[in-house]
Order: sequence, then structure tokens, then C-alpha cells
Amino acid sequence: MENIKAYVQQHKDRFINELIELLKIPSVSADTAYSQDVIDTAEAVKESLTKAGCDYVETCDTPGYPIIYGEKIIDPNLPTVLVYGHYDVQPPDPLELWTSPPFEPVIKTTDIHPDGAIFARGACDDKGQMFMHVKALEYMVQNNELPCNVKFMIEGEEEVGSASLAWFVERNQEKLKNDVILISDTGMISNQQPSITTGLRGLSYVEVEVTGPNRDLHSGLYGGAVANPINILAKMIASLHDENNHITIPGFYDKVQELSAEERAEMAKAPFSLERYKNALNIADVYGEKGYVTNERNSIRPTLDVNGIWGGYTGEGAKTVIASKAFAKISMRLVPNQEWEEITELFTKHFTSIAPAGVTVKVTPHHGGQGYVTPIDSIGYQAANKAYTETFGVPAIPVRSGGSIPIVALFEKELKSKTILMGFGLDSDAIHSPNEHFGIFNYLKGIETIPLFYKYFVELSK
Amino acid sequence: MENIKAYVQQHKDRFINELIELLKIPSVSADTAYSQDVIDTAEAVKESLTKAGCDYVETCDTPGYPIIYGEKIIDPNLPTVLVYGHYDVQPPDPLELWTSPPFEPVIKTTDIHPDGAIFARGACDDKGQMFMHVKALEYMVQNNELPCNVKFMIEGEEEVGSASLAWFVERNQEKLKNDVILISDTGMISNQQPSITTGLRGLSYVEVEVTGPNRDLHSGLYGGAVANPINILAKMIASLHDENNHITIPGFYDKVQELSAEERAEMAKAPFSLERYKNALNIADVYGEKGYVTNERNSIRPTLDVNGIWGGYTGEGAKTVIASKAFAKISMRLVPNQEWEEITELFTKHFTSIAPAGVTVKVTPHHGGQGYVTPIDSIGYQAANKAYTETFGVPAIPVRSGGSIPIVALFEKELKSKTILMGFGLDSDAIHSPNEHFGIFNYLKGIETIPLFYKYFVELSK
Repeated sequence: MENIKAYVQQHKDRFINELIELLKIPSVSADTAYSQDVIDTAEAVKESLTKAGCDYVETCDTPGYPIIYGEKIIDPNLPTVLVYGHYDVQPPDPLELWTSPPFEPVIKTTDIHPDGAIFARGACDDKGQMFMHVKALEYMVQNNELPCNVKFMIEGEEEVGSASLAWFVERNQEKLKNDVILISDTGMISNQQPSITTGLRGLSYVEVEVTGPNRDLHSGLYGGAVANPINILAKMIASLHDENNHITIPGFYDKVQELSAEERAEMAKAPFSLERYKNALNIADVYGEKGYVTNERNSIRPTLDVNGIWGGYTGEGAKTVIASKAFAKISMRLVPNQEWEEITELFTKHFTSIAPAGVTVKVTPHHGGQGYVTPIDSIGYQAANKAYTETFGVPAIPVRSGGSIPIVALFEKELKSKTILMGFGLDSDAIHSPNEHFGIFNYLKGIETIPLFYKYFVELSK
Repeated sequence: MENIKAYVQQHKDRFINELIELLKIPSVSADTAYSQDVIDTAEAVKESLTKAGCDYVETCDTPGYPIIYGEKIIDPNLPTVLVYGHYDVQPPDPLELWTSPPFEPVIKTTDIHPDGAIFARGACDDKGQMFMHVKALEYMVQNNELPCNVKFMIEGEEEVGSASLAWFVERNQEKLKNDVILISDTGMISNQQPSITTGLRGLSYVEVEVTGPNRDLHSGLYGGAVANPINILAKMIASLHDENNHITIPGFYDKVQELSAEERAEMAKAPFSLERYKNALNIADVYGEKGYVTNERNSIRPTLDVNGIWGGYTGEGAKTVIASKAFAKISMRLVPNQEWEEITELFTKHFTSIAPAGVTVKVTPHHGGQGYVTPIDSIGYQAANKAYTETFGVPAIPVRSGGSIPIVALFEKELKSKTILMGFGLDSDAIHSPNEHFGIFNYLKGIETIPLFYKYFVELSK
């Protein structure tokens, strides 16, 4: 595969422009105002797969947004790689913090990306990383170097829980049959040190509503005499962590997979500078569960975070009111062996139970997913490691990520195959934040590395 | 003054229509989007005073919204009554909870108001109650029954802290010279049982901002590893009350005027049904400071309430983000002898001190005011009581209100005169809430009662 480097160099401008076109479509799945854009993005992905060389591409209807399926079967007796990705993106707000409009991609250089990075919502998560696979297929087809069968399954609801994907996978196990699942929706340590994500956290996401009096009240006439839903919500949220920042929900930790001292020592070898971490976020200190270091708190430990809170008067000036209702969006990151539906139930039961008599509480589950850990002795992992080693010049380090790709556990359950998480993004890419970007270096390096995965996967499968 | 009843009956339709016209102008002082409307309302008030019979009316410029001053001096040797009111109103949101548009007044009957009530923002607080005084003046002038001098001072910033009023009063002590200040901006117990407010709570209103990481973060990659500003804000707010719902700010209670057992026993005589109170608000139980009953919690005790809170993702669906900032608007109701500037300082010092290392905190004082207690043996109180007794057939009961009219303490300090709070509103009028309304009975009864106050005040002053 000596040609791959040259091919990427020759076509990189087109590769970049094609991604930029895809990034211009605001496929925000969480907001129905964008629904037509989400559908338009699906169609754009479908076209790109046809152009890249799939011999069959299909828009699969679901209860939600469509799933784009594509395949190129060269020989039923050869292994099959199933590529998963998503074409939907996170909401762009707060818009005022973007230095350029989220859906008007521009290339800017940064300290970490001297060759430039594409700034746009979805540049890294996941349009950019998904599109690397489309371009890698193009290369392999154009140069007759596709060594096995390939299937693509690109969904549009990853940022809102992949409900339709679960529905689709359960109904299409034969069609999706494969030997390994390949996903680029995670990150790596740095552009000098590739890494492969071997663990993901699960997720339970709920919305809570605390209702006090049946109407907004004058805080002077009623203040101090009735339960204020905002004060109560704050009290309830605060009580979810104890003084050691352990989560207080009964049974929450019961199934948590504890790591051995050896495993934790192995993890500690990953390069990490607490100073650089704090400086990058401009915080005086880190904060988290007692007894664990930062790299453990955000990977092998379950957490509970409020993602949004609102209630009462939030406009200009002052309003002396006691709100009738207060709301919060709360998500829990889960680790292997924690069942997300069970955790959602435990949360609901506990949160409802701690409400004082003066208020009523409603908990609405949004979505969730299981945690996942992949073995590093699998053929898939070894093929990925050989590919990274060849293009980066150093072997990849296995790391546990704090993020969640809920459907990875689903794939193992329904499709009985392992997932390899070949991520090319960086923590600094600001995914889910204003000014999300994806390095040109990372984008092209991904396109260059992926075909090597196919090559080594087929070799090691023999 | 036998004519007053007849005069009110004869002109009530016009009285109602004139008030409705005033209520149509959205004079929301907290929101600059309405600034022209606030100014238009000032002009409308000015015209109404001229029409009612003031022989001098003036629009007084201030650093903020204008103050309308009007006077009718019939004899420098006679006593002078200074009427205070405000023409600005609270913001109308949440709009979706109004059964009719807040600035399109309509008359509807309710169980408490079988004769009908005017539904509109400001109907009771304070356009309706302020306008009663304008119409009472009209009656006294038309019928040559004005027994003394009268001055009007109607401001447009009461709902945002009366900053300009303080500025104005300090600079116009001679012009505002008076023997008693008359205000209708409070309530009474019921349409069968009038009451006079003898105590008001002070106010300290602040906005807090908690900043964590310098940008919104992916809650999967950072969750559990950095201080989440929303979780921290909730923790900090929760810590402001202890398990007995005492406020934990050091020094907060130091100057609180404690009532004697006798005084509390006297208060307990005011008719109050806890069941009706809970049913009216549709709450299972009340909530508040241990050791005090509802009527004490909302009147003689200081309180701390969050009036608004916001941060993170509050839109449709789910976003797994850790917000960079979280905000809250917090007000404290103060009782006599608590200095509001001092309380604001104590809050700021304490709130900043309890922030963990992972976040920074900013506290911005909005406004405040002193609490106030008026003696019931004053001529003004007795005149008011005689007036109520004559029009309602029963004497008024003195009550302490939980609300704040910050400028009452200012008047005593700057103008050296006592304020009489002749309120005609009811707790059920939903001031500061959706569907604010003011009973036709209450409006007309106020117009009928006010001239009697003038009569008895002059008689008792001889």
C-alpha cells in the first residue's frame, strides 16, 4: 500500500472540500427545527458512499432519522468489516462563543494544528472521522486494494441516544453480519502518540422537574413560608454527592467493575500532565471522587453531572418571584457491568424519595447505554495497532475513555462481534463545545491509516 | 362625605375604563425593550393628575425613569399628605400561563371577586392601587371636600429597586415636605376584613455567577474530573440553609429584631387557615424555618430565596455537556434592624468563601432596601383605621407583611415622616405572577375610603 500516501497528497484538497460541504449542513438531531437538514445530510452521505465505490447503497427508514447502509461485497468467503459512524451533530449553542459560525467551516491554524484545522460543528464528532472511512474506501476501490468485504452503517441519532439504531440492528442482524466493527468516534492521546480506546463509559440521561406552588409567587409575601422549587432542586442535586464526592444513590456502585492495583498502575503509565490539564481549562484545581486520580475519575469511575438547569426569572434585571417549577438535565456516566436501565430506575426511585412534602418531583428518562471494554489480544485490536504503528512510527497505547458510544455494547449483544475504536481526534478538538475543530493532519492521517487496518485484519484472519 | 358613595357609583364605569387604558401600556421597568412604554405611562399618569385637579404637575427627570410630581396646595397652614405610588410593573413572563394577554385588560369574575376583577399586569401592583388616589382626589376637588394639601410622587422604578427615587428624594426634601405619607401598594386580609400593614421586610437582591472550565466540556471526557459549575452552584445554594432551614451566612441574624411572646401571640390572632393556604397553592405541606409558623416565616423572619437559576443546555432533547458557567438570582427578605447593604456584604463574603478551588465566583448586588415598622398609635394609623371602619363596617387589623417597599425606610430617613400603608389588594390577586388581577370591589372601595382618611387625618391633627 505504498500508493496510499501519494494518493492522499494528490487528492487532499478535494478530500477537505468534500468534508467542508458535508459540515455546512446543520444536522442537529436534538432540535426538530433542523429535521430537514438532518435528512439532507443523510442523502449527502448516501451519495458519497456511492461515489466512493459501494456497489449497493440504501436509505433505511426507521422510527426516527434514516440510517444509510452501504456495502461492497467482493467475496463472501472473505472477512467483512462493518464501519459505523453518525452524520448528526450536537447543538451548536452557546453560539456567541464561536469565533466563526458553526456551520460555515473555515480552516485555521492552532498551536496543536500547525497545518490547520477545520472549525465547524461536527468537524471531529463525527462527520470528519466518519468521512475518513468513505475516503479510505475510495482509495482501496480506485487502486484495487480492498482486501475484504465492507459494510457501512451511518446513523443520524447518535447525539440523542441512537434509539432508532437499536431498532434497526435488532431487525437486520443478517444484513449487518460482520467479522469486526470499525468506528472512528473517539480520540487519541496526541498527534505524536496514537492510542486505541479499549473502554467506554455507559450513560443514563434524565430530566427532572420539581413543582412547588401551583403558580409563581411573590417572594416577599411567600418567601420562607413555602418550599421554593429552585432551592429544593439545588438541595436535592447537592445531596447526590457526599463530602468525598461519592454518589449517594443507594445501589449505584453495586455492580461497578473495580480495577486491580496492577491495572491502575498500567493506566498510570499513559503520559499525563496535571499542570497542562489545569492550564488548558484555566482552573485552579481539579475536582472529583476521593481516592482516584483525574485519569481514573474520567474513565473507570461512574459520575453524575448536571448538564443543564433552569427555573424562575432568568431575564434582565431582577424579579422577586418564587417559581412554580424548576428543571434540570442530569446525566450519569457508567462503567462496565452497570446496567443503564437499572441505574435510571435507581436514580428515579432515590430522587423522588428525597423530595420534601412541599414539592412534587417528575423524572423523565432521556436515553442511555451500556459501558464497554474491548480485549487487546483480539485480531481487530492487533490489526489496528499495526496500522497506527506503520503510519505514526510508534505503537498505539490502549486507553479507557470517559465518553460513551452506547451502541458499542448493543453491537456485541446483537451482532456478536467486537468493535475496534480507531479514533483520530484530540481532547483539544472541543467536541460538544463552541469552536469544535478537526486537524487536517488528523483527517488525512486517518484516511492513510484505515486501509492498513483492512490489510492487516485480513492477513491476521488467515 | 355622604356624596362619595354616590359619586363612585355614578362614575364607576369611567373609573374602570380609565384604569384599563393605563394598564394597556406595558411599563416593564426591568426590561429595556419596554423603555418607551414606561415613559409613555409616566405621561399618562401626569395627564390624569392634571385632570383630577392638581394645580401643578411636573415630569421630573432622574438618572433613570422620570418621576411624576403633582400637588394641590389649598392652604400652607393645613397639613400635607404625600401620596406615593409607582407606574412601572413586573415582567409578565411566563406568558404562556396567562389566560388572557397581560397587557390586554379584561374583566372576569372569580369566587373571591363575584363583582368581577380586572386581569392585567399591574392591575393591583401598583397601577390600580395608585390610580385609586387619583380618582379620590378628583372626587374631593369636584365636591370641594379636599380638607388639606396633597402632593403626589409617582415613580417608574419600584420593581427594579427605586434607585432614581432615592436620588430624587435626597435632592427635593423641601418640595416633598409633608405630614404623612400615604401608600397603597400592599394588601388586606379579605374583602370582609380590612387590615393595615404595619411592618415590611427589607430586601437584598444579588446575582451570582459560578465559572469553572474556560469552555463548555464534553461530560463524558471530563465528567467527574473537573468541578461542574452547575453542581457546585447547587451545592453552594443548598449550603445556605441548615437542616432547620436557618440561613447559614455568618452574622446574618445578628441584628434581627426578635418579637416578644406577647407580640407573637397578638399576631397569632389574625385569621388564618393553614388548610386553605395549602389548598390555594396546591401544596401538600408548607416549608420553612423551624420554630416559627407560616405567618411568622413570611413576615417577622428574614428569608433567602433563589428567584432564578440557569446554566448549561436547557433546550429540547439532551446535550452531554459540562457548562463553563452557571448563574442564579438570589434575594433575601430582611426584617427591622437588618441593614441591607451589610447583609449584601455578608452574603458576598460568605458565598465567595464557600467556593471550591475548581471554580471562581462573582457576586453582583442588584438592589435592596430596609425593613420598616410603623407604630399603631400615630394619627395617620388612627385616621386610616377610622376610614376603613366606616367603609367596611369593621375596624382594620394591623399586620406585618413579608413584602418590601424599600423606599418606606428611605422616606422616614430623608423626609422625617411616617408612612401609612393603606392596601386594598388581596394575596390571591397574583401580583408578580401570571393572571394578576384587582377586584372591582377593591378598586372602588379604595376610592371611597381614601377621602375619609384625609378627613380624619385633618380632624385628628387639630
